Amino acid sequence: MSAPPHKARPAGPGRVLPDTQQGMRRRNLSRVMHTVSAEGPLSRAAVASRIGLTRAAVSTLVDELIRSGLLEELGPERPGRVGRPGSALAVSGHGPAGIGAEVGVDHLAVCAVDLRGRVRARAVRHVPNRDRSPEPVLADLTELIHRVVAEAEDEGLWPAGLAVAVPGLVARDARTVARAPNLGWQDTDLGDLLPARFPLTVANEANFGALAELWLGEGTPRDFLHVSAEIGIGAAVVVDGRLLHGNRGFAGELGHVPVQPDGPACACGGRGCLEQYAGEEAVLRAAGLEPGEDRVGLLAGRAEQGDADVRRALHDAGTALGIALTGAVNLLDPEGVVLGGALSGLAPWLLPSLRSELARRTAGPACPVSVSALGPEGPLLGAAYSVVRGVLDDPAAVAERV
Amino acid sequence: MSAPPHKARPAGPGRVLPDTQQGMRRRNLSRVMHTVSAEGPLSRAAVASRIGLTRAAVSTLVDELIRSGLLEELGPERPGRVGRPGSALAVSGHGPAGIGAEVGVDHLAVCAVDLRGRVRARAVRHVPNRDRSPEPVLADLTELIHRVVAEAEDEGLWPAGLAVAVPGLVARDARTVARAPNLGWQDTDLGDLLPARFPLTVANEANFGALAELWLGEGTPRDFLHVSAEIGIGAAVVVDGRLLHGNRGFAGELGHVPVQPDGPACACGGRGCLEQYAGEEAVLRAAGLEPGEDRVGLLAGRAEQGDADVRRALHDAGTALGIALTGAVNLLDPEGVVLGGALSGLAPWLLPSLRSELARRTAGPACPVSVSALGPEGPLLGAAYSVVRGVLDDPAAVAERV
Repeated sequence: MSAPPHKARPAGPGRVLPDTQQGMRRRNLSRVMHTVSAEGPLSRAAVASRIGLTRAAVSTLVDELIRSGLLEELGPERPGRVGRPGSALAVSGHGPAGIGAEVGVDHLAVCAVDLRGRVRARAVRHVPNRDRSPEPVLADLTELIHRVVAEAEDEGLWPAGLAVAVPGLVARDARTVARAPNLGWQDTDLGDLLPARFPLTVANEANFGALAELWLGEGTPRDFLHVSAEIGIGAAVVVDGRLLHGNRGFAGELGHVPVQPDGPACACGGRGCLEQYAGEEAVLRAAGLEPGEDRVGLLAGRAEQGDADVRRALHDAGTALGIALTGAVNLLDPEGVVLGGALSGLAPWLLPSLRSELARRTAGPACPVSVSALGPEGPLLGAAYSVVRGVLDDPAAVAERV
Repeated sequence: MSAPPHKARPAGPGRVLPDTQQGMRRRNLSRVMHTVSAEGPLSRAAVASRIGLTRAAVSTLVDELIRSGLLEELGPERPGRVGRPGSALAVSGHGPAGIGAEVGVDHLAVCAVDLRGRVRARAVRHVPNRDRSPEPVLADLTELIHRVVAEAEDEGLWPAGLAVAVPGLVARDARTVARAPNLGWQDTDLGDLLPARFPLTVANEANFGALAELWLGEGTPRDFLHVSAEIGIGAAVVVDGRLLHGNRGFAGELGHVPVQPDGPACACGGRGCLEQYAGEEAVLRAAGLEPGEDRVGLLAGRAEQGDADVRRALHDAGTALGIALTGAVNLLDPEGVVLGGALSGLAPWLLPSLRSELARRTAGPACPVSVSALGPEGPLLGAAYSVVRGVLDDPAAVAERV
């Protein structure tokens, strides 16, 4: 009755990391930061009860975080509460800041966000980047970065890192743009072309848009699919509050899901991909319009005025989105779908056909589809806040750099 | 320049769990078990170097695991090695066992697997379960479970839990079959109908098949899509070594990804779903055959004999699978696709058109597609081994029950 033994595979990444006192301290520092960030201002006692450690243990951690400039004491709590008044803690408004940048097809943008999630400095430049080589684009971006960093430093902040959103696929090194067809970039290492002063992270704009939705949106579920667009169609999959990257870092390519298997050829090698029906250029073509600079503005304006061709083109794009999302919802079973980025501006004309297509292809209740409140700025905010998130996740690493 | 602060969302599940000495001990016990399971037999010194703890700390943990009957000492290592001979450790062949069960459309199966991954007892019964009510089916299954448990106990094992694979959607409580259309079951709580002696887990057969592939397969990547079939088509998504469940526990419904948006109506409410082209019944229909009991055997036999209708039907099913998988690969960017369960028996006739469809729809190298070596027994083995995995993940919990 005995079969040959199967060799079991090793457990996850935790296997080789010993669980040490030092690691425990780092994780507990992070718990304190996350708790104060999400629920503060809070007293030390409230933090202790939230994370289940003793008041004494929390005080030691809090003192360390205050010394590093990551937490601030706001002074005694207002009277009238029961017990000895404690001093309320908040994340610092003068400590590290996240610098976010976006390379768009028609614009460049940079902002600085403090630990509290407030935008403290911002710079935008409209410039056609299509088929412009990376060097001049990133020289322009560097200028904006220096301007925003100087402004943030004037406000008493210091940049903890730089995160850049790009309209393309990024390799797993989080530095190299593997393919950005609408910029004409391929295998471009942004690390060589941006200021070396800051730790750098590069990611797809749809990914940062989804993270902004997760971290800063109102009532965003922890399992959702975020769909955005800038010429191409991008999506990002968030599972239990974490971004799904995929093996090469290319997950979320909703734009190349086949919608009509015998449809028109696509640059990706496929046929009848969603992008051929719902990409900005496909919609403009279907509406008989020329692709110009402010494509979403043009479509939204015409649709608003009741242009029948534009409304029909957007209706058909919504239907195609509904078919592709039916497949995605069946595979991923998300709690919801969020339309963000440029798509949020077109939502009024896309949503009716999108929702009805999803509903008629689903036996039970259809997956709810909502529109991002952050709009086109989501990816930029998500990039900046990803740096802040890094500080909350491992405050000890930042404290060592202070 | 200051914008209203965004309220940051709390961090993941770790937020409310304090990091205590007790938790650290539990996690380190698990690391020792996983290390010995994956790489044993190993000396205490080798375990210590693998997990980065001191030899003394590891010895304390090992002694505890030996007392609980989870590890065994195999006696002194063979001479000729450098240094003082240590006693090699292995996971126990006489401790806890995982009991796995499968409710198939045409069969019931149960097996017991020890900590080493060896099948130590097994029972199978061929019985048509289609549209049979849950009570008699689970009464039959209970009889098989008692037989296998008795046999395992005769071998000195004790059942640590029961895991049941079903051809349907299972609710997040991991007990209730929400919908199993090919059994005709709906909202059936299996907990009430199976022996209460053992901790119970119920899951979709595709999920257990994927886990078997992950844990027991040779060279399976940590990011993959597992596709299987039993009348319906199921899939399971494994991301970084973990199963993707979805919001309701329904992720992986590849069978209802639209392949031809205007194709035939499907029971799910959709049109032109993959199941309408590549499900067992669709293939039998396309080949002009009647659905009987051993559907895969019938198709494989005819294809083997060169039956042109069957070969054409399987070729077309492979094409439809290729279209649906193109979408899935674009969304998930897995390292590979594995055909398992009943599909593995039809792979020789499905793979050529499946692979060529995937390749012609992909600009770069296409996602590799392989066939499970575990074959139709994957889900049963995966169910049983999931119980073993639970023991390796938290040996302290089992030790408390000894």
